[in-house]
Amino acid sequence: MQLLKHIRCPDDLRKLKEEDLPLLADELRDFIIDIVAVKEGHLGASLGIVELTIALHYVFDTPNDKLVWDVGHQAYGHKILTGRKEIFDTNRQLGGISGFPKRSESEYDDFGTGHSSTSISAVLGMAIASQLKGKHERQHIAVIGDASIAAGMAFEGLNHAGVTDANILIVLNDNAIGIDPSVGALKKYLTNVKRGVAKDENIFECLNFDYYGPVDGHDLNALLSELKRLKSVKGPKLLHVISTKGKGLQQAEKDQVTYHAPGKFDKKTGELEKRSADGLPPKYQDVFGHTMVELAHQNKKIVGITPAMPTGSSLKYMMETFPDRAFDVGIAEQHAVTMAAGMAAEGLIPFCNIYSTFLQRAYDQVIHDVALQNLPVIFCLDRAGIVGQDGATHHGMYDLAYLRCIPNLIIFAPLNETELRNIMYTAQMGLQHPIAIRYPRGRGVVTDWKLPFEIIEMGKGKELKKGSKIAILSVGHIGNMISDLIERLDFKSLIGHYNMRFVKPIDKHLLQMVFDQYEYVITVEDGCKIGGFGSAVLESANTMGLKKNIKIFGVEDVFVEHGTVEELHQVAGIDILTIEKYLSSLVNK
Amino acid sequence: MQLLKHIRCPDDLRKLKEEDLPLLADELRDFIIDIVAVKEGHLGASLGIVELTIALHYVFDTPNDKLVWDVGHQAYGHKILTGRKEIFDTNRQLGGISGFPKRSESEYDDFGTGHSSTSISAVLGMAIASQLKGKHERQHIAVIGDASIAAGMAFEGLNHAGVTDANILIVLNDNAIGIDPSVGALKKYLTNVKRGVAKDENIFECLNFDYYGPVDGHDLNALLSELKRLKSVKGPKLLHVISTKGKGLQQAEKDQVTYHAPGKFDKKTGELEKRSADGLPPKYQDVFGHTMVELAHQNKKIVGITPAMPTGSSLKYMMETFPDRAFDVGIAEQHAVTMAAGMAAEGLIPFCNIYSTFLQRAYDQVIHDVALQNLPVIFCLDRAGIVGQDGATHHGMYDLAYLRCIPNLIIFAPLNETELRNIMYTAQMGLQHPIAIRYPRGRGVVTDWKLPFEIIEMGKGKELKKGSKIAILSVGHIGNMISDLIERLDFKSLIGHYNMRFVKPIDKHLLQMVFDQYEYVITVEDGCKIGGFGSAVLESANTMGLKKNIKIFGVEDVFVEHGTVEELHQVAGIDILTIEKYLSSLVNK
Repeated sequence: MQLLKHIRCPDDLRKLKEEDLPLLADELRDFIIDIVAVKEGHLGASLGIVELTIALHYVFDTPNDKLVWDVGHQAYGHKILTGRKEIFDTNRQLGGISGFPKRSESEYDDFGTGHSSTSISAVLGMAIASQLKGKHERQHIAVIGDASIAAGMAFEGLNHAGVTDANILIVLNDNAIGIDPSVGALKKYLTNVKRGVAKDENIFECLNFDYYGPVDGHDLNALLSELKRLKSVKGPKLLHVISTKGKGLQQAEKDQVTYHAPGKFDKKTGELEKRSADGLPPKYQDVFGHTMVELAHQNKKIVGITPAMPTGSSLKYMMETFPDRAFDVGIAEQHAVTMAAGMAAEGLIPFCNIYSTFLQRAYDQVIHDVALQNLPVIFCLDRAGIVGQDGATHHGMYDLAYLRCIPNLIIFAPLNETELRNIMYTAQMGLQHPIAIRYPRGRGVVTDWKLPFEIIEMGKGKELKKGSKIAILSVGHIGNMISDLIERLDFKSLIGHYNMRFVKPIDKHLLQMVFDQYEYVITVEDGCKIGGFGSAVLESANTMGLKKNIKIFGVEDVFVEHGTVEELHQVAGIDILTIEKYLSSLVNK
Repeated sequence: MQLLKHIRCPDDLRKLKEEDLPLLADELRDFIIDIVAVKEGHLGASLGIVELTIALHYVFDTPNDKLVWDVGHQAYGHKILTGRKEIFDTNRQLGGISGFPKRSESEYDDFGTGHSSTSISAVLGMAIASQLKGKHERQHIAVIGDASIAAGMAFEGLNHAGVTDANILIVLNDNAIGIDPSVGALKKYLTNVKRGVAKDENIFECLNFDYYGPVDGHDLNALLSELKRLKSVKGPKLLHVISTKGKGLQQAEKDQVTYHAPGKFDKKTGELEKRSADGLPPKYQDVFGHTMVELAHQNKKIVGITPAMPTGSSLKYMMETFPDRAFDVGIAEQHAVTMAAGMAAEGLIPFCNIYSTFLQRAYDQVIHDVALQNLPVIFCLDRAGIVGQDGATHHGMYDLAYLRCIPNLIIFAPLNETELRNIMYTAQMGLQHPIAIRYPRGRGVVTDWKLPFEIIEMGKGKELKKGSKIAILSVGHIGNMISDLIERLDFKSLIGHYNMRFVKPIDKHLLQMVFDQYEYVITVEDGCKIGGFGSAVLESANTMGLKKNIKIFGVEDVFVEHGTVEELHQVAGIDILTIEKYLSSLVNK
């Protein structure tokens, strides 16, 4: 690390000679590999743009020139070169640096990212600000991948930028893959451009951009010479850079999906650390994926849709088994939802699997295209609740609140794998309404999960344990923590536990019984308190005239940062100890 | 109406000879003009596609072939030709037909619309369904305007459709205008295509569509011959049709913005019915628009953004006065919000004006790009609450619920024009948080509104009237109705009225006082009950240990249809009589 060790900020980088930069690139790549190998994180994306990252900071006058990393999981090199080298080993850990760019972390992080396709809009806003402030020399750079630029939002940014004279440079980092391989007509087109097959007017030129490239993203000389030239070109322009995700680590180049975020691995061989899953319960994702295949065998009307997450959601199993009936539509949540509505309108039974945090992108489509028409689309909201190291941009925190106000929509949160399977089974039997099924990232609790399907009665909660003084109403997976907690209490006989399952329609009979029979009512959810499940209980209790002390455990009205799920549950106050303490205080009153 | 009177459904239309169709077009146009002239509604869009509408139903086998009208306000001709001629005079009225396509209204309305840019995704979903059902001959047609196809969602649909072999036909109705003139790079490009200036590979061909056209949208022969040919072309294809909005009514062709929805007019001369506004309070929209200009004169950092609603929002005044600082970004709510975030990140003060119902399109951007970074963007949410005749797709019903769960965001609803002005003034003085200001469509209550600016204290509600037994807490414009109501009550001395103003942060001191001093607490809002303002009061009361009977007046958990605002307030049970009745019942208890 003879060069890297002297780089505290881009000014130090700019003191190097151009011919030293390839060595720096090697060092930076090794540095990333060394740390991610043991600390985990996103690997492939950052490895793929080491040269581009160096070239951008070398040529442009950051942080005066503005630089926005779309999605941002590729910004490790950027973080290391902009003052965070010494703390890079705290990446994604509680109290450590974020795995994504973050304004509060560094003056070099001009705009926080996490969700894709925001960078063009952000830099255009900045560029217009610079114009109004008279800073006409400043450049505003968005680095965006070929998967992200295909999302609708990016097109909106391009469409506006193309008719401005804003100084923006879109660096299209084209590696033909997002987390999974890129899809869609634009991807196909870009492939033709790279091959020289596309005809003479470029799609970006159609949108009034100056187009440059394609240039080899691992050829520092070529990058430097293009960027230097573009630095003084005014107006909107796009540089098409071809790169290889995972560049420099053989396995990461070869198996790009796995090495997107590979967990721990051997930094020399690249070999993944083996973790035995023997005896562990399955991931909810795999329960979803395998159950889809099982149900699709039985019911020909079932189709599956994922916006760019076939691996993460495990819809890939259905895509392999029924390629005509399972669709990866790319980063296009809006399209995914309305296409599902179109399918449902024609009698298909679409399972639309979207991460909770990304359904925020299709909120209007859920209301306007699905719920208003009461089309029985089955939403499977993956990564609901606190997701862990991905942090504030990725927690699925708001779904219960933002979905609860939508008429016609059923909202269900399974306690465990069995309930997930059974609600999927029930939903495809012919619901008269759309339904949202929300479950967390990771493993459930039931090892022997593949039991015969059972119908779940709509709107019915379930008594898990009878008590006498305090009733705990929980929704979803967090109910398992409550069961564990109750088991270890001295006063467990006092505590009743109710798995409400349906946030909407809420089980009013069960509520009535609970309010009649218990002195205290507690609600527990893995989501925001405002407007969430606890709020639903308050509303129902108020309407039903049930007057009791209700204590709501949920995430307070602040953004939750990154850390392990367990740590963040503690931070948010929805952990076992906090709840235990509260129960004790009630019992000892 | 010698031809039109015999057309009960498209089958009747198909019995006509081709040479009769121009006469039918004249009759259909007259029919639309005759009725819209007296009953009001959207005029220009439907006039512009009379020939296209006839040609589509003549050539294609509707309703077996699927036909989706993007946005849908251009579908009047379609409604008239598909069995709704006799009831077309009930258009947009309570209990009458909807101003937009609606699945429950007709088997010819294959997909409900209202919000733009959904049609491509919808027909692709339908086309995939047809493939799976073995209906390989069926065609699936989306009619979409040049303003709507520029929205991100439409691009997502195109990007997916282009790599399928689905039988879809996108009819691009290019009239260079949405409600206001179209903007953006794609519009510029399409203009070049029309002029023959564009080079040889078409942007739609880049996306793997077969491109046909441009064809004159008012030339029935040309349309019929193109459509007949395309009927048997498999796979994704796009027909570029050039039309004139308002075609056939001179004034509507000339002043396309005004005649988009002109109100009553003389069907012969086209002259608008004059309505005197003398002595009436101003529209909230104009208060917004003129206040923007006033503030922008004082504060150079202020910029204004509208996604495609310069006229509707009245941002046009600022666009005229400060063309460099006010932006119509087209139908691109996502981009509008994140661009505003980019501007705020660089120290500008962006006012981002979006209709409440359309902010649903940018929900993720509000959370992820604005609130998470705590950037002080000022959202002005126009058309909040019940909007009237536009109906279910357009009510701004959910904003309080879906915004309330977002950390860092302030939510304010002005009681009247003065409060709107003053909160705009206050917000641009340097808020440390983003703020959403929601106000309804139409006129306020204060004629003399242009008074000197005053600061509004953050999080503070206001006592409007002291009482002794019943406290009414209201937010926003609907509070004026409450004041009127109280004035006419015999027992007015019993009623206190509190204009809460801030839905978030809610005024807890005021709440404490109200719960201490009154026996009953009532909340009133023009929005959904679930998760809304009333729910916020419940949550706070629960946290603060305030135990009182709380009655929430808001819109129940159903979609509200179309009608006048007054009628719909009655339907929703948030009208003066319903609330009066409830108050009497409490008093007489």
